Amino acid sequence: MTRGKLYLVPAPLDFGCDPAVALQDVLPLGTLQASAGITHWICENAKSARAYLKRIDGVVPLATPLQSQQIQELPREVHKKGDHQAGQFDARPLLAAAMEGADIGLLSEAGMPAVADPGSSVVRAAHALGVSVVPLVGPVSLLLALAASGLNGQNFAFVGYLPQDATARTQRIRELETLALRTGQTQLFIETPYRNAALLQALMQTLQHNTRLAVARGLTLANADIRSETIKAWRASALPAADERAPAVFAIGR
Amino acid sequence: MTRGKLYLVPAPLDFGCDPAVALQDVLPLGTLQASAGITHWICENAKSARAYLKRIDGVVPLATPLQSQQIQELPREVHKKGDHQAGQFDARPLLAAAMEGADIGLLSEAGMPAVADPGSSVVRAAHALGVSVVPLVGPVSLLLALAASGLNGQNFAFVGYLPQDATARTQRIRELETLALRTGQTQLFIETPYRNAALLQALMQTLQHNTRLAVARGLTLANADIRSETIKAWRASALPAADERAPAVFAIGR
Repeated sequence: MTRGKLYLVPAPLDFGCDPAVALQDVLPLGTLQASAGITHWICENAKSARAYLKRIDGVVPLATPLQSQQIQELPREVHKKGDHQAGQFDARPLLAAAMEGADIGLLSEAGMPAVADPGSSVVRAAHALGVSVVPLVGPVSLLLALAASGLNGQNFAFVGYLPQDATARTQRIRELETLALRTGQTQLFIETPYRNAALLQALMQTLQHNTRLAVARGLTLANADIRSETIKAWRASALPAADERAPAVFAIGR
Repeated sequence: MTRGKLYLVPAPLDFGCDPAVALQDVLPLGTLQASAGITHWICENAKSARAYLKRIDGVVPLATPLQSQQIQELPREVHKKGDHQAGQFDARPLLAAAMEGADIGLLSEAGMPAVADPGSSVVRAAHALGVSVVPLVGPVSLLLALAASGLNGQNFAFVGYLPQDATARTQRIRELETLALRTGQTQLFIETPYRNAALLQALMQTLQHNTRLAVARGLTLANADIRSETIKAWRASALPAADERAPAVFAIGR
């Protein structure tokens, strides 16, 4: 029997934001068509996966009614810690339907699955089982932020979240700044939206005058806001109003 | 006078490849519509920019005839060395039209401008001039490759090209492997297509048995090919047939 494929299905970046974007503004028709043909899903949260499928159905009718789609959730442990910190999560059982010929879609809450988001264990399992992996085109906040930052995009790293503890966070910011200034490698990181204001304060207090900081908020949304300048310039003007719901990407470089 | 905006316009990944992809398969309608409305362009190569605009015109008619579009090329030095190696390239004069109200599109030969490609000087100049930067959604080979690799996507780096000299290349591969194994940070890099086979050979010879290597070729194209496994498994099977035109992304991790 021919195996199904594992499609990596990007989602819009408007999760929980208002107004939502039009799917056609951020997803190619090819991605919407491929997604509308899928009947089996692996996701972080079944409820939001269903809501997303409903939105897709409004643009390209689903091949199979929503009620009869099969939706599996990733284990909680993987959400919380990430696939690689969670250790040896064996995702092969989640791909049983693909071994029997069905295409499966892997979906995260926003953006590209397995990039700054859970899902890589599932992709790894697909490779182990000989299931073809097809990444579909869609929005990736990290890369939109990097491109829009004007920082070095030919050498960059994404390091995830910084520590929550203030002392550890300051130390980590210093480490990342040293690396960025010494090697020219732009350092990208993210934070849970309600902690963005505290992180920005810490960056203001810790970084050197000539280091460049970019903060990209609400990418692809109506209220998108991208600011990129030296810390000196950041300090000379008012900080952006705190928005506890807007996801943000931070980047430092020289 | 209201300033124009700087749009970062992604291009398909089929440059020089056959058959070309349908634009709607890899670019959102929103991106095509925004691009069709732009009259001023900054690009690597005017000829391929015109060819791309002609393709866009086939899907969404251009607001202004192709002949009357204004197209400026980035300086050669920036193509060759990248914006950050080229030193203090001042791109502000390229943005003169935006200061007079026109929207400008920044375009690279494939994928997202300013990511693994020239253009960041122009984005930086836009921030310096108070010109808003709007990144549009489209294909980014690095991120598609990372997602499809099953390697750690919550901590990763893109380091550009490896050295051409064999000894220096081997040393750099060892460095990147050590970093990837020690920190868990996936290391991504690229090579000029006709050197891909030599790079793959060097990786086979240099990397350790249990290190994972992913090679993604022809992403978004009909002949896309993504392989991700341990070096032990790579060594046990035939290497993919060399294709001197297929752009590839390499990733190593644990």
